[in-house]
Amino acid sequence: MGKRITVALDAMGGDYAPLETVKGAVDAVKELDVNIKLVGPAEQLHAELAKYQYDKERIEIVHASEVIGTDESPTMAIRRKKDSSLVVALNLVKNGEADAIVSAGSTGALLTGALLIVGRLPGVERPALGTCLPTKTGFTFLLDSGANVDCKPKYLEQFAKMGSVYVENVFGIKNPKVALVNIGAEKEKGNALTKETYELLEQTDTIHFTGNIEPRNIPYGEADVIVCDGFVGNTILKLSEGLAKTIFEILKGEIMQGFYKVGALILKTPFKNMKKFMDSDEIGGAPFIGLKSLVVKAHGSSNAKAFKNAVRQCVLFAEADIIGKIKDKI
Amino acid sequence: MGKRITVALDAMGGDYAPLETVKGAVDAVKELDVNIKLVGPAEQLHAELAKYQYDKERIEIVHASEVIGTDESPTMAIRRKKDSSLVVALNLVKNGEADAIVSAGSTGALLTGALLIVGRLPGVERPALGTCLPTKTGFTFLLDSGANVDCKPKYLEQFAKMGSVYVENVFGIKNPKVALVNIGAEKEKGNALTKETYELLEQTDTIHFTGNIEPRNIPYGEADVIVCDGFVGNTILKLSEGLAKTIFEILKGEIMQGFYKVGALILKTPFKNMKKFMDSDEIGGAPFIGLKSLVVKAHGSSNAKAFKNAVRQCVLFAEADIIGKIKDKI
Repeated sequence: MGKRITVALDAMGGDYAPLETVKGAVDAVKELDVNIKLVGPAEQLHAELAKYQYDKERIEIVHASEVIGTDESPTMAIRRKKDSSLVVALNLVKNGEADAIVSAGSTGALLTGALLIVGRLPGVERPALGTCLPTKTGFTFLLDSGANVDCKPKYLEQFAKMGSVYVENVFGIKNPKVALVNIGAEKEKGNALTKETYELLEQTDTIHFTGNIEPRNIPYGEADVIVCDGFVGNTILKLSEGLAKTIFEILKGEIMQGFYKVGALILKTPFKNMKKFMDSDEIGGAPFIGLKSLVVKAHGSSNAKAFKNAVRQCVLFAEADIIGKIKDKI
Repeated sequence: MGKRITVALDAMGGDYAPLETVKGAVDAVKELDVNIKLVGPAEQLHAELAKYQYDKERIEIVHASEVIGTDESPTMAIRRKKDSSLVVALNLVKNGEADAIVSAGSTGALLTGALLIVGRLPGVERPALGTCLPTKTGFTFLLDSGANVDCKPKYLEQFAKMGSVYVENVFGIKNPKVALVNIGAEKEKGNALTKETYELLEQTDTIHFTGNIEPRNIPYGEADVIVCDGFVGNTILKLSEGLAKTIFEILKGEIMQGFYKVGALILKTPFKNMKKFMDSDEIGGAPFIGLKSLVVKAHGSSNAKAFKNAVRQCVLFAEADIIGKIKDKI
């Protein structure tokens, strides 16, 4: 194991900040080999941290007086709010004072800020947002899940390479299966982007390309990594969330109506397991891959457990030297 | 009510042809004010029809010796198999011997054949495949659900107009709400296609445009008509099917494992209702809109009920003179 890494945590990002970010930081230093720089209004964070027992040397508060709202224009916010928790945290990474950053704030501001302040790895055309989608057999790593809405085939080829490195090293899946999201199984199916991308992926011998995956088969977990443009990827991600929620609501309503008491009892465990199946807290965030350092976008509704797991991703990422491996593969 | 219409039914299309197509034709003439031309191998269809009692004057068998498989190249199949049930049925429509066609065969062959043989309505740039997606409150009419994988803003504007006419006249929804599928609620969100399309839809005063709809909200039924390119539309359709199926499988497995007998009893009604919620047989097929006549793509797994309901769509379509109304609106 290498030296202990430092993660900058945007203490003001997310619906439950700073309560859950601070608790997540405390849990992280207790469980993981990591130091945390908590970025936000110093006074408020000190008061919050005072509630906990932890090794004082491992969490440092870095003051930032402003906060970027989720409704602000990303580019404007990054340029103007120099003393926001997000910009200060990104600068810690840029200046080498932190190795990675976790934020549950505005996705747009985080992606824009990461590109402007942290910067792309040489050779990477477009960094991609990767998300673990739950499947029947485990999960599939989907990229791009929303950072690049208009893509060229070359970008998708790089997503495939970066996704393979990530899944192999963070989740230990050897020679991961990579599939292209397409509306038909055959090579000649799809739109202009997927047809050209298929040709390119077929010729890429550093990945294990298994062909197209149709959207209906995504929930069955046939591939470890699936690639598509960010518009389609975000649609897959958000529709899955919305549909799962709706089905639960309908089914629960129906069952409870018919058999209230016994229904509640019988459904307790399966619903809990299904919730876990859909639970993003277990992974803790979506890595934005292809930058000079790791940037993790945590879900807006993240709790302490999600923040801790997002920090865990940063530790695994650093231990496996994923940045170095992506550089080699691109 | 106008004159009784005639629907050409591709008797050899679908997984359960010709058993279910023939039964569907018989049910249709019993319940609906329609005549059917059943297209396929005459001898086989006569034998199948002999099983039923029905008004002999209302079902006519039109012989066709060939069948197009779902694995054949659509363009080649349409050009070469002149005596296939699909091509013969399409020619009946072209020559005015039938008013509409229903087929559960290869989607690609049907779309290609419809464009080549039936032809587009003047002014329509790209006919679109419309699908009724079940939602919590009813359904949403999605187009394009797979016919046009690469689209221009103008196509989507026409989808919005054609979808509005369809939903208003076939389902009786006055002034239907039209939304653009996009990965953000705000006007400026999305990719190049959705940004330009938004501008266009805003200026179209013959539709009731309500803005963007995010994929997570589609299952809640916030809009009556939703428009997107065929790649995204097909992804939404197929992912919804796959995900609903997976969630049922997991939940059923969990519940049955824990409480076998009582679980089976309690789940019977809710699962039946949920199945109905996802049941495409109730609608009976996806209309391919924007052609000189109505073409309905029935699901590959259609049963007699689905075929009958697809024929019902053709009757409603004709009664409401949707072709004329689309001509006026485009």
